[in-house]
Amino acid sequence: MAGSTRLPRYAYLGPAGTFTEAALRQIAGPDEAQYLPMVDVVSSLEAVRSGRADFAVVPIENSVEGGVTATLDTLATGQPLVLLREVLVPVTFVLAGRAGTELADVTRVSTHPHAWAQCRRWFNANLPAAMHVPATSTAAAAALLAETPPDHDPGFDAVLVAPLSAELYALEVLADHVADNETAVTRFVVVGLPGELPAPTGSDKTSLVVHLPSNEAGALLEMLEQFAARGVNLSRIESRPLGDLLGRYSFSIDAEGHLAEERVAEALIGLHRVCPHVRFLGSYPRADGAATNASPGTADADFEGARRWVESLRAGSTPT
Amino acid sequence: MAGSTRLPRYAYLGPAGTFTEAALRQIAGPDEAQYLPMVDVVSSLEAVRSGRADFAVVPIENSVEGGVTATLDTLATGQPLVLLREVLVPVTFVLAGRAGTELADVTRVSTHPHAWAQCRRWFNANLPAAMHVPATSTAAAAALLAETPPDHDPGFDAVLVAPLSAELYALEVLADHVADNETAVTRFVVVGLPGELPAPTGSDKTSLVVHLPSNEAGALLEMLEQFAARGVNLSRIESRPLGDLLGRYSFSIDAEGHLAEERVAEALIGLHRVCPHVRFLGSYPRADGAATNASPGTADADFEGARRWVESLRAGSTPT
Amino acid sequence: MAGSTRLPRYAYLGPAGTFTEAALRQIAGPDEAQYLPMVDVVSSLEAVRSGRADFAVVPIENSVEGGVTATLDTLATGQPLVLLREVLVPVTFVLAGRAGTELADVTRVSTHPHAWAQCRRWFNANLPAAMHVPATSTAAAAALLAETPPDHDPGFDAVLVAPLSAELYALEVLADHVADNETAVTRFVVVGLPGELPAPTGSDKTSLVVHLPSNEAGALLEMLEQFAARGVNLSRIESRPLGDLLGRYSFSIDAEGHLAEERVAEALIGLHRVCPHVRFLGSYPRADGAATNASPGTADADFEGARRWVESLRAGSTPT
Amino acid sequence: MAGSTRLPRYAYLGPAGTFTEAALRQIAGPDEAQYLPMVDVVSSLEAVRSGRADFAVVPIENSVEGGVTATLDTLATGQPLVLLREVLVPVTFVLAGRAGTELADVTRVSTHPHAWAQCRRWFNANLPAAMHVPATSTAAAAALLAETPPDHDPGFDAVLVAPLSAELYALEVLADHVADNETAVTRFVVVGLPGELPAPTGSDKTSLVVHLPSNEAGALLEMLEQFAARGVNLSRIESRPLGDLLGRYSFSIDAEGHLAEERVAEALIGLHRVCPHVRFLGSYPRADGAATNASPGTADADFEGARRWVESLRAGSTPT
Repeated sequence: MAGSTRLPRYAYLGPAGTFTEAALRQIAGPDEAQYLPMVDVVSSLEAVRSGRADFAVVPIENSVEGGVTATLDTLATGQPLVLLREVLVPVTFVLAGRAGTELADVTRVSTHPHAWAQCRRWFNANLPAAMHVPATSTAAAAALLAETPPDHDPGFDAVLVAPLSAELYALEVLADHVADNETAVTRFVVVGLPGELPAPTGSDKTSLVVHLPSNEAGALLEMLEQFAARGVNLSRIESRPLGDLLGRYSFSIDAEGHLAEERVAEALIGLHRVCPHVRFLGSYPRADGAATNASPGTADADFEGARRWVESLRAGSTPT
Repeated sequence: MAGSTRLPRYAYLGPAGTFTEAALRQIAGPDEAQYLPMVDVVSSLEAVRSGRADFAVVPIENSVEGGVTATLDTLATGQPLVLLREVLVPVTFVLAGRAGTELADVTRVSTHPHAWAQCRRWFNANLPAAMHVPATSTAAAAALLAETPPDHDPGFDAVLVAPLSAELYALEVLADHVADNETAVTRFVVVGLPGELPAPTGSDKTSLVVHLPSNEAGALLEMLEQFAARGVNLSRIESRPLGDLLGRYSFSIDAEGHLAEERVAEALIGLHRVCPHVRFLGSYPRADGAATNASPGTADADFEGARRWVESLRAGSTPT
Repeated sequence: MAGSTRLPRYAYLGPAGTFTEAALRQIAGPDEAQYLPMVDVVSSLEAVRSGRADFAVVPIENSVEGGVTATLDTLATGQPLVLLREVLVPVTFVLAGRAGTELADVTRVSTHPHAWAQCRRWFNANLPAAMHVPATSTAAAAALLAETPPDHDPGFDAVLVAPLSAELYALEVLADHVADNETAVTRFVVVGLPGELPAPTGSDKTSLVVHLPSNEAGALLEMLEQFAARGVNLSRIESRPLGDLLGRYSFSIDAEGHLAEERVAEALIGLHRVCPHVRFLGSYPRADGAATNASPGTADADFEGARRWVESLRAGSTPT
Repeated sequence: MAGSTRLPRYAYLGPAGTFTEAALRQIAGPDEAQYLPMVDVVSSLEAVRSGRADFAVVPIENSVEGGVTATLDTLATGQPLVLLREVLVPVTFVLAGRAGTELADVTRVSTHPHAWAQCRRWFNANLPAAMHVPATSTAAAAALLAETPPDHDPGFDAVLVAPLSAELYALEVLADHVADNETAVTRFVVVGLPGELPAPTGSDKTSLVVHLPSNEAGALLEMLEQFAARGVNLSRIESRPLGDLLGRYSFSIDAEGHLAEERVAEALIGLHRVCPHVRFLGSYPRADGAATNASPGTADADFEGARRWVESLRAGSTPT
């Protein structure tokens, strides 16, 4: 890299071959970005906070397992970070081993616990004797297998990994399409420091963390009412314990629309007034490109017209 | 009154001695204003629209009979008028007749139908044989009795009127404290053309007419939600048929607070967006002087703080 | 009429020729019933309470003027009465006078205040000099005109009445189709003592009077929620002051459906628990024959299935 | 064990020394029950389904990490199981190693990922160089360390475990009170086959799994309304993806109260009607002994009174 241009630096859960790397490749090819593999999600996000990376690519939600706790919790507190983009990566595993391994001989399978969770039923049906050997990432398991001398036991017989890993580490695929759910997909987000918001596209999401004023059902209804009163639909809502007491919750929310839109801004103004804590995690384009649902009376022009009307009333005219 | 100053002209339901005149006297004494007696509420309000009067004083709600239909309906359509002030007048009747009339001889009682309605039980208990002879106002009945020559039958034996009427028309009081409900009170309002709003006092009302998007229970819930989401309490809500079809309604609403307050302005912005028709009928001081109920997070400062927060988010900073 | 059979006795607002009589004729012809004309709505209803009549036919709602206060209030308190049926009568007036009266000469018009209110705009446009002379019913005005000797002044020049009245009292029609609203209609109800409910037809209404626990917007929302949680739609909701204090209201409600239906019964159970007062005013067929709107999951079978499910859970099985 | 009595068999996440065993000891001492250690939560629950165990003790919620996914998901589908009791276990860790290990030398720490997650900040502050070596349970890490010959490297330097584990496996405590949150607590539940429900105590919980009819905010509001309309408060609500599509959710709910109580039964009847799927997971005493919050009008007597009232209305009497 010559001259004044520096390639953007992306922190991600490494090593090479993880699903996260597959997500990163959708965003910026290896020749368009510096890849900074990290040991975990928290380290990836902290790299952005500390300035060692410009962006982090991290998983935030899995269609089978739900929200990724480490990501949600790291974003929810500490120095502010914002989401800038999302990408979807289908979750397909292969079971891979050293050359010569027979599927029937596999009893110890190393992989990340989330991967194991997503294939439990497959193993019950196909390899009921298989036991799980936890690894810090699917690719780490593949790397360890590839690096262990052939005459040493790495502690397991096979790895459950992304197809890319098997390829990168030259492992033999013992079974492919290993998954309990063929349509499983993981959502990854690009995270950066706060700055100019991505421009609204008409197909956007706004992510938030909201604490409730109390732990009553009524408080949740009241919070949802702030969205409903402005016609803002939610595409995701997940409770997370606040960690101080059992029964107190924070809500991780994806609302349809962009902060630049009036109805989203108004909903946030309402939340800020009635909730003890609201953290804005960004407005960014949806990966699926679906247009935002907007009920009648909730377009920007409706808000502007209504505001002009109230202004004229305040000024003493009664235009009705 | 010398020189260029003209006393303000007040239209009201006459003739002299009506409850409406009693209300008017609370607002402006006979030496501070020109009193313009009118034949009915509609004429009083039209006098303001046509410029013949500066203000009208009209009854808007009775604690026993409810909203005054003619007032509510005339305000709800046609050239805009606004409420500027309210006053409360206790409803106490006397039964009065010509000198020499015996209470036991009274069988025909002339009065306005609303007055009759408010004393039905008293008559059932005390003068069960009495029949109602309708009049256009309580004072009109008194005036007719006073003006009828002693040897002519005015068509009734006694009148049910305000104490002031009996005094003004020199009638003999046959029974006082005639009322089914000793605490009954009528609310009158001063109505004028739109102009500068009365200053907020911390004890204000905002009156509105709102049409619903449909006749479903859900539509009413949605409308109320616009108030609830901003913590605005309602002190009165009355349905009125729209007149085009059975089952379609308009709502006459008094909300606590002043349009100059953010939470009221925001609620109106919301209503304007989601309801097919909203008419603002003014923000004005409450007669009872009770302070507005305001739940936490709904002060002007809360709205301003929340708006600044959203503005800063839009500008790319994340202050939380 | 021979033997043991007695014709049912119907009390109604007389005299002959009122709109109420027109409603009664839709229900039972003069040879099928005894007609008992009464001086007002309250007397009609009291005749049922005292046993002098089997039924009363009274107006309950007008598409222009709204709920009929005297009817609603008399039903809301005192000895229980129930609605058994409803009929709709179009509101069309004629202006009628003695033979030889010229329309242009009419300046004094006698009629019931509600009739006057519904033709105000017509008079403003066609007879702007006309003044209102109140009568206790439209037919009473017609009767008085017919009974006054030709050389006496009844106090007015013409009457505003139902076409039937002009015919019955042999008056000359000076103008017909007198109305501000050509589609106006009045809803009448047949009222009786509580007893076996009319059978459900699939097109029914249930009428109620409900007091709110407090005068806050939240209380109204909570009350509406009891209907919404069972998918019961409201076809009419009107507030009426409780009469003790300004700002406290009772609600007069027509809900879609019949008490024999589970979702209506459940909504009433909920109201009875959370509201300080609920009065049931009957379940009866709708005049318009429209089928009840029922959202998914609110049929009787859904309630029965859900209840059996909960019973089985309580018994220790978990059928899911 | 002689004679006809067999000690109840409890499956739990082993090996000896886990937090789950600490929970089990609160429920039944080693001489009152057969302890059946299992490799994971799913196996523990399946042991009850298959009849190999009478009960399972499994973690269901952690005050820091939230719901335990494997437990919630296994309970949510498959053969029905119910919760019978809950117990709380404070989460306190020790860092332990072989005799002679120095805290400063520790760079590789083996433990269960959840334990690691709950001590991340402690390690950042005290042993920033420490890396995580995943284990299937905290106790498994301790056992492996204890069983590895002194001259072999188990692959890590220390274990992060419950105090009980360090004691059981005779390890040296290098640091105690290791935790990011001193008040952290894990909630465990006793799970069995459906049968007679535990008797209501006035301090009970009812656990449910509820699917929403659609993924809109309105659907969530509607579901919460079924609780609110009966005054049932929620002590926990967590969304879980349905696994078929991103954005579709199931809700895991703890409601206050017992199915034997009317308001809870009614809420379930409502949910069963309007939600595509509801699974009852039991009514059982709360560990904290707090009395159920019950708003006015929601006692069993209120429901019974309201039901009798509706029954009498249906029978034709009007008791109001």
